[in-house]
Amino acid sequence: MTIRIGIAGYGNLGRGVESAIIQNTDMELVGIFTRRNPEDVKIASKDVQVYKIEDILEYKDQIDVLILCGGSKDDLPVQGPQLAASFNTIDSFDTHAKIPDYFESVDAAAKPNEKTAIISVGWDPGLFSINRLYGEAVLPVGETYTFWGKGLSQGHSDALRRIEGVKDAVQYTIPVDEAVNQVRSGTRPTLTTRQKHTRECYVVLENGVDETSIKEAIVTMPDYFIDYDTTVHFITEQQLKTDHAAMPHGGFIIRSGKSGTNNSQVMEYSLKLKSNPEFTSSVLVAYARAAYKMSKSGQYGAKTVFDIAPGLLSPKSDHELRKELL
Amino acid sequence: MTIRIGIAGYGNLGRGVESAIIQNTDMELVGIFTRRNPEDVKIASKDVQVYKIEDILEYKDQIDVLILCGGSKDDLPVQGPQLAASFNTIDSFDTHAKIPDYFESVDAAAKPNEKTAIISVGWDPGLFSINRLYGEAVLPVGETYTFWGKGLSQGHSDALRRIEGVKDAVQYTIPVDEAVNQVRSGTRPTLTTRQKHTRECYVVLENGVDETSIKEAIVTMPDYFIDYDTTVHFITEQQLKTDHAAMPHGGFIIRSGKSGTNNSQVMEYSLKLKSNPEFTSSVLVAYARAAYKMSKSGQYGAKTVFDIAPGLLSPKSDHELRKELL
Repeated sequence: MTIRIGIAGYGNLGRGVESAIIQNTDMELVGIFTRRNPEDVKIASKDVQVYKIEDILEYKDQIDVLILCGGSKDDLPVQGPQLAASFNTIDSFDTHAKIPDYFESVDAAAKPNEKTAIISVGWDPGLFSINRLYGEAVLPVGETYTFWGKGLSQGHSDALRRIEGVKDAVQYTIPVDEAVNQVRSGTRPTLTTRQKHTRECYVVLENGVDETSIKEAIVTMPDYFIDYDTTVHFITEQQLKTDHAAMPHGGFIIRSGKSGTNNSQVMEYSLKLKSNPEFTSSVLVAYARAAYKMSKSGQYGAKTVFDIAPGLLSPKSDHELRKELL
Repeated sequence: MTIRIGIAGYGNLGRGVESAIIQNTDMELVGIFTRRNPEDVKIASKDVQVYKIEDILEYKDQIDVLILCGGSKDDLPVQGPQLAASFNTIDSFDTHAKIPDYFESVDAAAKPNEKTAIISVGWDPGLFSINRLYGEAVLPVGETYTFWGKGLSQGHSDALRRIEGVKDAVQYTIPVDEAVNQVRSGTRPTLTTRQKHTRECYVVLENGVDETSIKEAIVTMPDYFIDYDTTVHFITEQQLKTDHAAMPHGGFIIRSGKSGTNNSQVMEYSLKLKSNPEFTSSVLVAYARAAYKMSKSGQYGAKTVFDIAPGLLSPKSDHELRKELL
């Protein structure tokens, strides 16, 4: 039995999904759907076709689960509900504040059409969210701490690139060791934004632009940098290409609590990722298996990682799981 | 709405459950059931009654979930199926090799009686098992490493106490830093038993017993010590009481894998527990909430942590979870 997967959108995430499917022997990639001219899209797989996204409904019966690889800002708010009306879907919608609304709109499309749509899958939202939940459910008296990094932040890199005079840039978010160690030790400090993370920027300037004024514009930028200790390095375009092309990321979720008679208990979940988009893609693919199983058992509508029993992610049977992994 | 909990068995685990229930405002402890004479059992709660375990069926309608706090060796194989015929139950059955059989026997009792019985709950089996599953589902190409400790091992302490001439003893399992760091770095070493953990024993001897022969008996003991680098310290009964009364434990599950284009990705789950039994109890209590919800929605029979969607553990509504934790 093979789960037939479609990919909608072929950027970093779509490429990651394509490469992850090959690692899962119970899955098969049916096609890649793009807004671009299919002939212009070079893909890694040899035997897979690229199609226009407008034609996707023609392939409805050939796809068990469609993995939506578009962005949360412009693509998913439209595509999510639209495609969940015709396909079982997985997406990585990650605008935290808009998740409740997005959930409702996808649910309204999926449920009456008997489709299963798992939204906001990845590591944050996703695996980190699950660990926030396990942490507070098991240790209701305690604090949850989230640290991100060391990793390249797409949003903050974009913010740098929007500054006039900046040709290109990347930004790394770095957790402050001292804060992490304090939390790990079982104390429950109150930490300010500045105490938890620092930000490190690598910036390529346009010709003739003044370093001092750009640096000032960065470190005082509201929302993005002003509340952090920010370091700015000016580098050449070549250095950016050579040293900063990878997309590492990661982080920690730490739940520090006290059990019944005041014993300190610390739960920690951490990720150290060489490729952020490829890891997110790997999570999407595992949840595609869950969407497939849930649709087969009639569990329709929008779902999140909170609704998915762990066993649904595995290709192993319940009996094998109990025998081998419990 | 309050979930009414009963406790069967009042040892370390039962006491832990009692103290954990107080931290969960949606729960109430109905009664403690013991094989001992109820009048001889001193409990922490003021308004809770202690009853004879033989009378437990009289309280059937007053208990939503019964938490079984007996041992895996002698108590649960009998009590588990017996009580799952009349109650929704949670237990911490942890004899890994016997889990499949135990599951079947509990399932056969619970399902026809429309009861929900979640078995093998705790941290290993339990939260560690879930992380083994998430690890291999997300990164199918990789290795999973489990390290335990630093922590007091009940089984190994018991093995020491069975040696003739040993009056009392405790044993700590200690993960080897070098091995842990190697795995964390993203290499995937093949590690022998000896390379992963060391064992440290604190032993009180009976009067006049020879240290050398006891030490030899310990370090050569098959199954328990012979495959490890074992250190033996002889101490006084007073030192044992003063310095080794706590029951700390913990450990790490590390999944080290490669995503699609060969990027190294490392997922780690770790626990640092000041009280092993109290933490296990806290996990049992969170899963009691899940058992309650599942029984209400007609999901009967034996279950494991693999069958439990994370959201079921939380007192929060699905909407609150999406809004606050996703």
